[in-house]
Amino acid sequence: MGRKAISTRGACVLAAASAVGKKEFEGPLGEKFDVHDVTDRFGAPTFEQSESEMQRIALGLALGKAGISADTLDALFAGDLLNQCVGSAFGLLEYDVPYFGLYGACSTAAEGLLLSSMLVSSGVLDLAAAVTSSHNAAAERQYRNPLEYGGQRTPTSQWTVTGAAAFVVGRGGTPLAEITDVMPGIVVEKGIADANNMGAAMAPAALDTLLAYFEATGKAPCDFDGIYTGDLGAEGSSILGELLEAAGVSCGDKLFDCGVMIYDRKRQDVHAGGSGCGCSAVVAAAHLLPELCAGKQKSILFIGTGAMMSPSSSKQGNAIPAVAHLVHLTGRGRE
Amino acid sequence: MGRKAISTRGACVLAAASAVGKKEFEGPLGEKFDVHDVTDRFGAPTFEQSESEMQRIALGLALGKAGISADTLDALFAGDLLNQCVGSAFGLLEYDVPYFGLYGACSTAAEGLLLSSMLVSSGVLDLAAAVTSSHNAAAERQYRNPLEYGGQRTPTSQWTVTGAAAFVVGRGGTPLAEITDVMPGIVVEKGIADANNMGAAMAPAALDTLLAYFEATGKAPCDFDGIYTGDLGAEGSSILGELLEAAGVSCGDKLFDCGVMIYDRKRQDVHAGGSGCGCSAVVAAAHLLPELCAGKQKSILFIGTGAMMSPSSSKQGNAIPAVAHLVHLTGRGRE
Repeated sequence: MGRKAISTRGACVLAAASAVGKKEFEGPLGEKFDVHDVTDRFGAPTFEQSESEMQRIALGLALGKAGISADTLDALFAGDLLNQCVGSAFGLLEYDVPYFGLYGACSTAAEGLLLSSMLVSSGVLDLAAAVTSSHNAAAERQYRNPLEYGGQRTPTSQWTVTGAAAFVVGRGGTPLAEITDVMPGIVVEKGIADANNMGAAMAPAALDTLLAYFEATGKAPCDFDGIYTGDLGAEGSSILGELLEAAGVSCGDKLFDCGVMIYDRKRQDVHAGGSGCGCSAVVAAAHLLPELCAGKQKSILFIGTGAMMSPSSSKQGNAIPAVAHLVHLTGRGRE
Repeated sequence: MGRKAISTRGACVLAAASAVGKKEFEGPLGEKFDVHDVTDRFGAPTFEQSESEMQRIALGLALGKAGISADTLDALFAGDLLNQCVGSAFGLLEYDVPYFGLYGACSTAAEGLLLSSMLVSSGVLDLAAAVTSSHNAAAERQYRNPLEYGGQRTPTSQWTVTGAAAFVVGRGGTPLAEITDVMPGIVVEKGIADANNMGAAMAPAALDTLLAYFEATGKAPCDFDGIYTGDLGAEGSSILGELLEAAGVSCGDKLFDCGVMIYDRKRQDVHAGGSGCGCSAVVAAAHLLPELCAGKQKSILFIGTGAMMSPSSSKQGNAIPAVAHLVHLTGRGRE
């Protein structure tokens, strides 16, 4: 019955890196990303290959920052939004590292960090990396319509982030942050079937994991500097806030969402905010982890949120199942 | 450089169960599967939902055999071939268990067993389950053409298995078998771009993992009662045998393939044999694990093989990346 938070003491994010497209570079966090390409192409002939290339670049940069070579990695945990997760399979092909393919939709960064930290903390692995990505143009033509179609977007729709991030997880060293404990999410489906309102579909999953975590650990929002959901967007964040209030949990001004943070919604035409595997990944890599490392924040919850729907399942009338994986990150500071 | 086999001592498959369709029931292993439906529908209105239903049934049966309830499971590791892995997301929705979505193509059963055993052996989790599935009609219309189209199949093409299996992994008890050690695979791509010859694309991945395992452990094929690849089919198996011979490793009569075993290729119109996530999963659940439990075999290698291509990547001219995950299973026998 009672769900457990899983201790991952000793597992640390040793390095993280990000690569993004034009819109992300022009957003409020733009200067923080390691690499950007204003063409969104990264020199590749198709958008899908551009996405792969971003993964390749992000992992290479993260390994460089950690000062290690790929052949010291014991495992890669990677996935993305493309059918059959080909963004990862092709993007990481040149790295001869044992490969665990994941599918967690937009929660993939958190899922990869969970698995990496559980296996590194327990000593099964010494070094692992979590990698993920999304690409706006590739996601649009797969899930909805090619960009050229010029489809009208609804107010609750979100903008898939063009970006990839990689995280190197190990023990010791001079880490960006420690992954203190984690809580994997349960698949939750509350009847939301609107593929243009994934924030609403994912908010109940985030609620479920947060409430389970607070109950299991006896902690409350005031114990953290911030609670960062992955990509609920403005609509989903507002719903989560209301659901938490209704459950008697007040987050005050502690609740943030990477999908809201990555764009300037007034200036950039993104409707409810960012989404996609790359969204929470690049915000964590370029903003949250550096803040922890610099001592600006000491303890945060990072909750990757994923809507695991496919165009086929939606057309067959199914609602959208969602999952939310929680990672508790603690700053250790660098000497 | 040197790859390591990962010890998973103490992690045991406590129970396994399978559900299959008509063609699988009519094959040589037909009587061994727990449940079958000659309509391939399992009461569901679409093939995709039939696939989900098989997963739901398989996990329910496995939990029943293990004598545990779902709420004692610490984690589910699940994935399938449907876009966004909706077979698993919907199939396991009723189980309120922390959910790790995987994408390993047809290697998913092995990938799930690897992650379950690593986390159970190290004590991070107490009980986990690995679940996967495929459905011929759902896979055909997603990857190739709807069955009604009546497309001609090439001699090297394989028949996607309609089936699902679930494995409960824990410590102690009266297990079917112990997972002694595992070796995750590296993504390998050797230029095979023919989506109708996935055996050829996957054989080099199986070779890579097998050679790495033999080198890491100092073992040879003669140390095992059998080496069972997941779904190379007749073509891929033959290629793997040749590649192993060329590498100086003789397997004698120890090399088997679940895709060859599941159908009678003379009597059933399956061309090179079975494939799909369900293929290796149901053969392991219904045949290999019971053989280990009964003492008919004492030590086997089970190598899940996955071709991680998508119709989009193939149409864009990419070759097929493949991965092979190895699980070393040792019979402990039941008292």
